[in-house]
Amino acid sequence: MKIAILTIGNELMSGRTADTNSSFIAREANLQGWSVEAMLSVEDNFASIKSRLNYLLGLADVVICTGGLGPTADDITTEAIAQAFGLPLYTDEKVLNHIKEIFIKFNLTWIENNTKQAMFPQGAEVIANPVGTAAGFALHIFGKWIFVIPGVPRETQKMFPEGVIPILRREFPENEQYIAKQTIKTFGLGEGAVDKTLADVDFAALGVNIGFYPIFPENHLVLVSRQTTKEAAEEKLKLACDEVTARLNKYIFSYGEKTLEEIVADLLKEKQLTIAVAESCTGGLITDRLTDVAGSSEYLERSVVTYSNAAKVSLLNVPAAIIEKHGAVSEETARLMAEGVRKMAGTDLGLSSTGIAGPSGGSEAKPTGTVYLALSDTAQTICRHYAYRWDRKRNKLIFSQAALLLLKNYLEGKDKP
Amino acid sequence: MKIAILTIGNELMSGRTADTNSSFIAREANLQGWSVEAMLSVEDNFASIKSRLNYLLGLADVVICTGGLGPTADDITTEAIAQAFGLPLYTDEKVLNHIKEIFIKFNLTWIENNTKQAMFPQGAEVIANPVGTAAGFALHIFGKWIFVIPGVPRETQKMFPEGVIPILRREFPENEQYIAKQTIKTFGLGEGAVDKTLADVDFAALGVNIGFYPIFPENHLVLVSRQTTKEAAEEKLKLACDEVTARLNKYIFSYGEKTLEEIVADLLKEKQLTIAVAESCTGGLITDRLTDVAGSSEYLERSVVTYSNAAKVSLLNVPAAIIEKHGAVSEETARLMAEGVRKMAGTDLGLSSTGIAGPSGGSEAKPTGTVYLALSDTAQTICRHYAYRWDRKRNKLIFSQAALLLLKNYLEGKDKP
Repeated sequence: MKIAILTIGNELMSGRTADTNSSFIAREANLQGWSVEAMLSVEDNFASIKSRLNYLLGLADVVICTGGLGPTADDITTEAIAQAFGLPLYTDEKVLNHIKEIFIKFNLTWIENNTKQAMFPQGAEVIANPVGTAAGFALHIFGKWIFVIPGVPRETQKMFPEGVIPILRREFPENEQYIAKQTIKTFGLGEGAVDKTLADVDFAALGVNIGFYPIFPENHLVLVSRQTTKEAAEEKLKLACDEVTARLNKYIFSYGEKTLEEIVADLLKEKQLTIAVAESCTGGLITDRLTDVAGSSEYLERSVVTYSNAAKVSLLNVPAAIIEKHGAVSEETARLMAEGVRKMAGTDLGLSSTGIAGPSGGSEAKPTGTVYLALSDTAQTICRHYAYRWDRKRNKLIFSQAALLLLKNYLEGKDKP
Repeated sequence: MKIAILTIGNELMSGRTADTNSSFIAREANLQGWSVEAMLSVEDNFASIKSRLNYLLGLADVVICTGGLGPTADDITTEAIAQAFGLPLYTDEKVLNHIKEIFIKFNLTWIENNTKQAMFPQGAEVIANPVGTAAGFALHIFGKWIFVIPGVPRETQKMFPEGVIPILRREFPENEQYIAKQTIKTFGLGEGAVDKTLADVDFAALGVNIGFYPIFPENHLVLVSRQTTKEAAEEKLKLACDEVTARLNKYIFSYGEKTLEEIVADLLKEKQLTIAVAESCTGGLITDRLTDVAGSSEYLERSVVTYSNAAKVSLLNVPAAIIEKHGAVSEETARLMAEGVRKMAGTDLGLSSTGIAGPSGGSEAKPTGTVYLALSDTAQTICRHYAYRWDRKRNKLIFSQAALLLLKNYLEGKDKP
């Protein structure tokens, strides 16, 4: 079954508001196994709404419209659709009473305009709005289905899954399919290289769709299998996952939706380990990411951003002579920073970063993008050295990624000195 | 002149990626005085791209396409458009050399696939990509203009203003060729409230177009005046800016393009002041933002993320009895953290944050979203208290924003104890 999405509103066409409803509806529809044929935005204008709706009805079995259901004069979606099909409007007393109750509850002033929100084209099936005054409706006409729901994202996000999908499931039962889905997250290979590595895999023959989602510095793959039985969907998905794993194994850091910081947080909590961080070039970003996870105070004791050499010496006990001899950006300094912060904080682990984010500060021996990362426990200190070539902000981000990955690999027993 | 926007990509149709390019382009086009007739998204499919493009060419004079210019097999936009008009593809040697240089510079492995990004339909005018490998192009055909640029938002946001608009200005010349433009950045008022506050200003009558850009937690306004003389453009822009300033004064933190952290960096350097930061609830984000500015080691000496109470006591000398009595999230603790980090680091200034980012940890007296921010110099300590109501990540971001704003106001002599 094919779906088209029509988002309606002048605020969309002026760029004043970004349309988030289309991607929400598309995501939900895809999960149901329905494909989205087109997503179109149009201004609040009778002729435009009618003409765009006609175009979409030619492309799809179902058109989902959002927006233009408010009480004000520029909200004309219901009337435009009724006009398009020559349908009279009727007032739904139940909806009208619901709106009046909301006005009384919130002590709002009733304006006669509001009765507009209880009017629907003849033959429409009302879709209740649990979070606002604007009810939606479904219209079955000329063999096609038109759905109209409000454009307020909070309301769309309630009414599409709870109001629209059940009607579509009822009306298109033959499209019931079993879906198996797997997200695979990689780091360390560019999008083009990931694609090339998988070029010889015939995903279509495996009965699986693959999507590539580059989210710097990660590349995510999503595999989706739609089959007539749950077992077949899962089996085909597993075969495709195995193919991807065989080719990208060393770059895959996660199967699933969790972020790298969430994975690290789970591991730290599971192993009941505490950590302290000493950052230089990452400027607090490693700690910022660790503390993006709720409950991070369970494992993060403290961090220091020792930007100056004096801070590395006085806070972390890195001998000034070591910095003098090897440089602040060196394996020696990184190791001593990790050890120093662990001892100072009294934690199980110490993690450190020192490098050159750029744009200046690089040299021939240590160019911009150089980073040393170290991880210390009571028995050992691991140090890794990388050279990246991005701009300042992306260097910081990729440094923090490599640091969290070092931590993850250590916690999984995969990284040893 | 009427514009239509065609965003191309399977990731859009699956809902995995929200289309932000359409609203960006629509905003920029509106600022130029051009109206957007339709915004349509389509999958990476030859037949669909051709058919959607034809539809849009019937609605508008100009179609702006984004996406599908990568090196991988599913990137077919250029070929689809060439096919649609029966045009052969040619290789642009200059573009090819540019791509090869990027590969050499970043030490990437050359794959023959990449030559695809140097191919264009015959008759196309190449649009350079200053931030990536995928060049765009303009095609003038059957009296219409088709533009194709990459879909990576960072690249779209460079190439539409710098590559597409100049060609459109050249091809659709108008008398009003003198442009005056002003960005105004606000913080502290929601998007709807900003809009409502300006509702009575008739920008069209003032001869100015206005664009709204919500970039959480900031709301940016861009005013553009296009007139027949430079003086008229500047005069009308000034009148409109004055109207905006009169209404939003207390929320405006900047006139111009600089980020808040860049403004703070300039002020610290100008006044030759050094700073140290003690963060709790912001988890390193204040320091991360301060160090996003190149050369931040000139003023940032160190930071500490004192997540545990023990760290607040041992590193910052906040008496345990104060934390016990007033709580870690309190004005008393915030003040002592700012003073403690300043003294420990030997800097001119100390900045601190302590609060509850959520989702848990809140109480009736101090709900989630509560934050205390303090700034200490040798003579005084300023403390501010705010209550926000976002999720964890946005609370952290808005806390860091308020902290940097406190610092900015202090440095400008606008904030006193």
